[in-house]
Amino acid sequence: MLPVSLLVIAFAAQTSARFTPDWESLDARPLPSWYDEAKLGIFIHWGVFSVPGFGSEWFWWHWQGQQPPDQSCVNYMTKNYPPGFSYPEFAPQFHAQFFDPEEWADIFKASGAKYVVLTAKHHEGFTNWGSPNSWNWNSVDTGPHRDLVGDLGEAVRSRSLHYGLYNSLYEWFHPLYLNDKKNGFKTQEFVMHKLLPEIYNMVVRYRPEVIWSDGDWEAPDTYWNSTELLAWLYNDSPVKDTIVTNDRWGAGCACKHGGYYNCEDKYTPGKLPKHKWEKCTSVDTLSWGYRRNMKMKELMDLPTIIEDLVQTVALGGNYLLNVGPTPDGMIPAVFEERLRSVGAWLEINGEAIYASKPWRVQTENSTLLSVYSFTISSVTIHLPSYMKCKSECLPLVQVTLLGDPTSLSWSPVHPDAGLTVLLPELPYSPAQVWTLKLEDVQ
Amino acid sequence: MLPVSLLVIAFAAQTSARFTPDWESLDARPLPSWYDEAKLGIFIHWGVFSVPGFGSEWFWWHWQGQQPPDQSCVNYMTKNYPPGFSYPEFAPQFHAQFFDPEEWADIFKASGAKYVVLTAKHHEGFTNWGSPNSWNWNSVDTGPHRDLVGDLGEAVRSRSLHYGLYNSLYEWFHPLYLNDKKNGFKTQEFVMHKLLPEIYNMVVRYRPEVIWSDGDWEAPDTYWNSTELLAWLYNDSPVKDTIVTNDRWGAGCACKHGGYYNCEDKYTPGKLPKHKWEKCTSVDTLSWGYRRNMKMKELMDLPTIIEDLVQTVALGGNYLLNVGPTPDGMIPAVFEERLRSVGAWLEINGEAIYASKPWRVQTENSTLLSVYSFTISSVTIHLPSYMKCKSECLPLVQVTLLGDPTSLSWSPVHPDAGLTVLLPELPYSPAQVWTLKLEDVQ
Amino acid sequence: MLPVSLLVIAFAAQTSARFTPDWESLDARPLPSWYDEAKLGIFIHWGVFSVPGFGSEWFWWHWQGQQPPDQSCVNYMTKNYPPGFSYPEFAPQFHAQFFDPEEWADIFKASGAKYVVLTAKHHEGFTNWGSPNSWNWNSVDTGPHRDLVGDLGEAVRSRSLHYGLYNSLYEWFHPLYLNDKKNGFKTQEFVMHKLLPEIYNMVVRYRPEVIWSDGDWEAPDTYWNSTELLAWLYNDSPVKDTIVTNDRWGAGCACKHGGYYNCEDKYTPGKLPKHKWEKCTSVDTLSWGYRRNMKMKELMDLPTIIEDLVQTVALGGNYLLNVGPTPDGMIPAVFEERLRSVGAWLEINGEAIYASKPWRVQTENSTLLSVYSFTISSVTIHLPSYMKCKSECLPLVQVTLLGDPTSLSWSPVHPDAGLTVLLPELPYSPAQVWTLKLEDVQ
Amino acid sequence: MLPVSLLVIAFAAQTSARFTPDWESLDARPLPSWYDEAKLGIFIHWGVFSVPGFGSEWFWWHWQGQQPPDQSCVNYMTKNYPPGFSYPEFAPQFHAQFFDPEEWADIFKASGAKYVVLTAKHHEGFTNWGSPNSWNWNSVDTGPHRDLVGDLGEAVRSRSLHYGLYNSLYEWFHPLYLNDKKNGFKTQEFVMHKLLPEIYNMVVRYRPEVIWSDGDWEAPDTYWNSTELLAWLYNDSPVKDTIVTNDRWGAGCACKHGGYYNCEDKYTPGKLPKHKWEKCTSVDTLSWGYRRNMKMKELMDLPTIIEDLVQTVALGGNYLLNVGPTPDGMIPAVFEERLRSVGAWLEINGEAIYASKPWRVQTENSTLLSVYSFTISSVTIHLPSYMKCKSECLPLVQVTLLGDPTSLSWSPVHPDAGLTVLLPELPYSPAQVWTLKLEDVQ
Repeated sequence: MLPVSLLVIAFAAQTSARFTPDWESLDARPLPSWYDEAKLGIFIHWGVFSVPGFGSEWFWWHWQGQQPPDQSCVNYMTKNYPPGFSYPEFAPQFHAQFFDPEEWADIFKASGAKYVVLTAKHHEGFTNWGSPNSWNWNSVDTGPHRDLVGDLGEAVRSRSLHYGLYNSLYEWFHPLYLNDKKNGFKTQEFVMHKLLPEIYNMVVRYRPEVIWSDGDWEAPDTYWNSTELLAWLYNDSPVKDTIVTNDRWGAGCACKHGGYYNCEDKYTPGKLPKHKWEKCTSVDTLSWGYRRNMKMKELMDLPTIIEDLVQTVALGGNYLLNVGPTPDGMIPAVFEERLRSVGAWLEINGEAIYASKPWRVQTENSTLLSVYSFTISSVTIHLPSYMKCKSECLPLVQVTLLGDPTSLSWSPVHPDAGLTVLLPELPYSPAQVWTLKLEDVQ
Repeated sequence: MLPVSLLVIAFAAQTSARFTPDWESLDARPLPSWYDEAKLGIFIHWGVFSVPGFGSEWFWWHWQGQQPPDQSCVNYMTKNYPPGFSYPEFAPQFHAQFFDPEEWADIFKASGAKYVVLTAKHHEGFTNWGSPNSWNWNSVDTGPHRDLVGDLGEAVRSRSLHYGLYNSLYEWFHPLYLNDKKNGFKTQEFVMHKLLPEIYNMVVRYRPEVIWSDGDWEAPDTYWNSTELLAWLYNDSPVKDTIVTNDRWGAGCACKHGGYYNCEDKYTPGKLPKHKWEKCTSVDTLSWGYRRNMKMKELMDLPTIIEDLVQTVALGGNYLLNVGPTPDGMIPAVFEERLRSVGAWLEINGEAIYASKPWRVQTENSTLLSVYSFTISSVTIHLPSYMKCKSECLPLVQVTLLGDPTSLSWSPVHPDAGLTVLLPELPYSPAQVWTLKLEDVQ
Repeated sequence: MLPVSLLVIAFAAQTSARFTPDWESLDARPLPSWYDEAKLGIFIHWGVFSVPGFGSEWFWWHWQGQQPPDQSCVNYMTKNYPPGFSYPEFAPQFHAQFFDPEEWADIFKASGAKYVVLTAKHHEGFTNWGSPNSWNWNSVDTGPHRDLVGDLGEAVRSRSLHYGLYNSLYEWFHPLYLNDKKNGFKTQEFVMHKLLPEIYNMVVRYRPEVIWSDGDWEAPDTYWNSTELLAWLYNDSPVKDTIVTNDRWGAGCACKHGGYYNCEDKYTPGKLPKHKWEKCTSVDTLSWGYRRNMKMKELMDLPTIIEDLVQTVALGGNYLLNVGPTPDGMIPAVFEERLRSVGAWLEINGEAIYASKPWRVQTENSTLLSVYSFTISSVTIHLPSYMKCKSECLPLVQVTLLGDPTSLSWSPVHPDAGLTVLLPELPYSPAQVWTLKLEDVQ
Repeated sequence: MLPVSLLVIAFAAQTSARFTPDWESLDARPLPSWYDEAKLGIFIHWGVFSVPGFGSEWFWWHWQGQQPPDQSCVNYMTKNYPPGFSYPEFAPQFHAQFFDPEEWADIFKASGAKYVVLTAKHHEGFTNWGSPNSWNWNSVDTGPHRDLVGDLGEAVRSRSLHYGLYNSLYEWFHPLYLNDKKNGFKTQEFVMHKLLPEIYNMVVRYRPEVIWSDGDWEAPDTYWNSTELLAWLYNDSPVKDTIVTNDRWGAGCACKHGGYYNCEDKYTPGKLPKHKWEKCTSVDTLSWGYRRNMKMKELMDLPTIIEDLVQTVALGGNYLLNVGPTPDGMIPAVFEERLRSVGAWLEINGEAIYASKPWRVQTENSTLLSVYSFTISSVTIHLPSYMKCKSECLPLVQVTLLGDPTSLSWSPVHPDAGLTVLLPELPYSPAQVWTLKLEDVQ
């Protein structure tokens, strides 16, 4: 017999009321208050998938797992890489040479977000810290040669933002996982030798305030030992008082068990839910991870983001807005612009967002819901000095909006100042700038 | 004696009036009319410099030519590349795998531009077509393995845009050039064996309508054989009737000789010039080539661009707006957004731009100059139906702009429709969205 | 408490007499007879270390573990690689594109060897098969993308050669190992989560006939669970009847416990040992792994190898001769030549080697010991026909050996045939060819 | 007209008798005496082709020029490189990090050779020095970042070896050459803009004593301007008194015009030629350039080389023996061994080689021709001391050669010393070692 001894990890018992490793007990835990007050969080998908930067962060799966009908990832590899090239060989190109956590944190802070969630480990299994359970498949041993999780965490917290970590339970191609799967999840080699020691290491080391769990759906929570893990997190972990988790802890858990609910990606409830929830969504509508070939039309524009944020908060949700950094370590400028613009908007309008009552007592007649119902129907224009004339000259002016031949109605405000013009319904203009043409000024 | 025979390239003489190879004759050539009517062009800096994507398209020079005091390029190489790595070794990473000339041309068309100028060859000497005089240092032999100049030209022209080519006379590190330079430009080995055969090849093959000459300043026009080249271009070349050139044809030529004037990069004259000119400028204020680490604050925002465009055109200039594509072959989304937004603005306001009279007769009292002098001072709001009430209820409403505690004055428009609110001076907001707060509605 | 369950791997009990997991019992096991009869084996060091191919297979340790005073590996990396480059990033260059196991096996067969031992995993931890416990750090997931252990085994066995696997117990930089080490080897996380599951997988999958254990010296056999592992190997493993192991099973085991003894690398006993032993040595005297910069003088020449082989066998040892293949998958030609030449020699002289009595009854007066004591002192030369003359002409001939002016004594053999020349002591000549100069032939 | 001025390179006239640029005059030039006395030279094929190291130095042509039926180079690229990978992209991997010209020169010196010929530029066009006419396609601008031609020349000359340079006239894929070719060699753009300026630069800079011309066959010597070039070399170049050239100066020149004759590669004349000639051949029988996958059986063994050398010299030829260094800058150990072994043989037997009369007066009855006709037919053996016995015991000894059961005849030399054994004809044995078995010694 191959002798294998028992690994025992014991924790000192707590004296206070404790949670038992079952959903009834765990689900009853009140959500730490910081979370509902935060409203806006930034989600970051960063990993080896950022190197191919094609399709989405599911690149590996769509290439070598289950190909979508278009075979786009397969074709991309065939066209651009040597035969036999394998996914782990992308890792050395994950340079992150421009990664400046202070700068990232500045952007996140400027966005008005109150928490930041980084993919500590996505389904590819690559850990963004030097996990001892993922030797040579982590950001310290190869690629960035940095503790990305630690470095970002420090910068984020020094700006009074909360710091959370995304962690995928399953790893598409981990041979121990695949073996457990083949065994109908009756064995737990992956969970025992890899997953749990690693999560434990991660929590003790980085003390995240969110564990954004994912990749749970193929197996029941009993395979993942989810309730035991959560009981440890809530009872004995170093973050037992502040930790927030979501609802991805095993097939059937979504929208039902755990901390707040994500339900599905980008899920928005039709009416006010009874349980705190979070909408996660991505500026790049096609991907969470960076795509080298993203185009403008595939991105959410600012009004769409703000409207989405407003609706989510109005329905009691938190809004977790995702950006995918480049393998070089940059937040692409177009994402930075979106985040800073959200922040500029919140700088003025944030009161309506942050002050919205906690979801438990929120009512539907929030004014927030109607913020977009106003329509601008006229503007009053101050004429530049050299165009000013006495009131009697104004009737002779003809005003048109460039792009529309119809003359607009107008009325003088007062002789020295200008005129008020009635506007037609204005189409969306990215720059929000139109030109009025004033003719026949005497 | 090493026998070297004479290369004779003869062209059939034209019967029409011809230009002589001297500035007096060449400067008197009328500018083909398409150019002044175009107003807006797109400039594209793309080359091997896009691979390091650091500092600017002058990377090579700032690394191994003359280092700026901060030594940033030297330090970047030291930190990220093996000792001895040389610039030509970047070329294989110039993949251009996503380069879709149709898509680029769509974006340029959508921007409202009427001409497009691509760097056929920058100071690095790498040619973006398979130049026989630049073997293994061009985009066909290495890197993209494509005729970038040809492919883009076809797409651009199929959208009725004019197509121009940027060409650098000098090449920082070409050994023949360096030798001529060492000889005080008394030898012309570089010009005879490399430069002139190459330009000739380029013109005959791609028939550009602009030759945007650059890199002339170290030597006099007599070294470059500029007047002979221009005489050939104007008299005998296949583009003799349509070709437009600028003023970079040798030390002392800028603002003085050639076709239209660029004078300096980003030059704007103080008053209306007497000679057709072009302002070239770049969305990325720090670089013409792609930078991997560009940040939002280093980019021109849309209002700045539009204001710059308007001012330039008002002063009789053309506006050549630059974007730097990635080595993967993409126009970065933030640049695409700027270009499409300029186009959306021109879609509405373009009449004022394109219809502006040719520079020769333009007067200074253009209304364009004052387009930005208007100030919006009030808006009229249509209330959503559930907020409507009889006119007598309206006085009870208190209106504030979020971010400003002061109550705003307002007046009813008519009982069923809404109210007109007087606005304070509004600060710039990236999204051009503000929230009005209406309280105490009964 | 983080719940970790117990991994239990049970094996059906055997009915025959069983070994108990203690040295007394294990050491008493008779060595399977094939091993002593084999005499000559081929050792192959192949791994990621073959990629840098500098210094030796200890490259990683001498670079980033403990540097020798000359700092040669550190300097090599500094001079040739970018800062921050890490060892795992060599793996993608382990192409093995020419690896043809049939050809390798042909060479090994031709060498006269009877067994082949491949590094399944060296101290770097990279496994030459798709070990589920070494995900993304093995030859299937990256680099060769092949099951090197399996492919070579098949080819080797189809030529009736025995197949063994080298396995390092410790892994220089495995974080779990380093942690156990920090804990004074009181924890066994590395052994339980990595080492033992992996060996078990390897044995069941490839059924090696030798486990050439190494890397044991930092920890006692109790840390490695060596006796339990050996008991399993001897009692219950699929190779229990044929498996042979060596003596590297923990600090203090060498030359004392296990199967045959290696004692130290390249160890040769002074007199006939009482226990079966093996001398492992390498054609490249400076390295076991491939070195890109090996020079002729650093290699064992053929006479040295044969003498070493003869002496080893005469003293009852087996001779395990090492070659280091290239990262491309070739046995360097100079190694192939050595191996084939040993085989050519054995083809003629093998009787003396293979027939040597088993070590247990070997006596010291073996004629093998003196095989090299003969000295050639004369040669008899047949003259080419046109030089033949009657016997009376021969006295007039003067014979010298080129390179030595002294005339040599000679005597006619018979008039038609030639002459016998007495030779001086001949220096070693790589080609074993000398020229005799015959002058004054009438 | 595109203005191109005339490049005039003038040289001071010489007062001595001058050669005219026609074959009658040039062919009459006496060969500088050093060459015929040298007998043995080393040929080195090193270039970008050493990087793929597959097939031969004709890799590029067999891949993208004219494929041989087996398509092996095409297949190799398809299997191991990304689609679109181009030949120039191999250059950055031509690291030459171990290139030590002193060590190379030591090996060449030890081989007994008197001259060394390096490929300064092969058909690929890559120059092993910083040719100003081959910018970014030479060993200084990319790859080794070294002046290989210069560095080796210095080391070679400091050991009193003559230094020659191989130069290919044509370049398979040079666009200017291809264009001239398309024009039926009626244009000379390649010759004027590239070839001649480059050769001139090379000769002036490195002063080679051999120009080993090649790649001439597609065009007549009039296209290459060969007679003019040779006249310059012989009359006015800095090496006019020492330069030796071969016979590859245009279609039809081989074996007919120029300096010494190579005729074809590896050509050996049937009888003594009337004109000085050189046999060039390669240790690797399949390639002149390094092959990563060379096998022992594809290499010339030492006896073959020596026999070939002897035959060549006997027929009045020089012997130019080729080795292909690795892209890392090493002479593979197996080549080093061949060269040093030739040298060891020449150390003893060189007199017969170097002293052989100059070809012009050489007669066919050279003793060299029969050097290999001797057959060793007996050896006299000194017994080790413990085997010695009185003369009367010797008759009882039975002597056999291992591998041959027949007893050999022997006779005692004298009682204390040993015995003379008559040998059968001995088969080739790589190590030249046989075992004599002495049995029944009383």
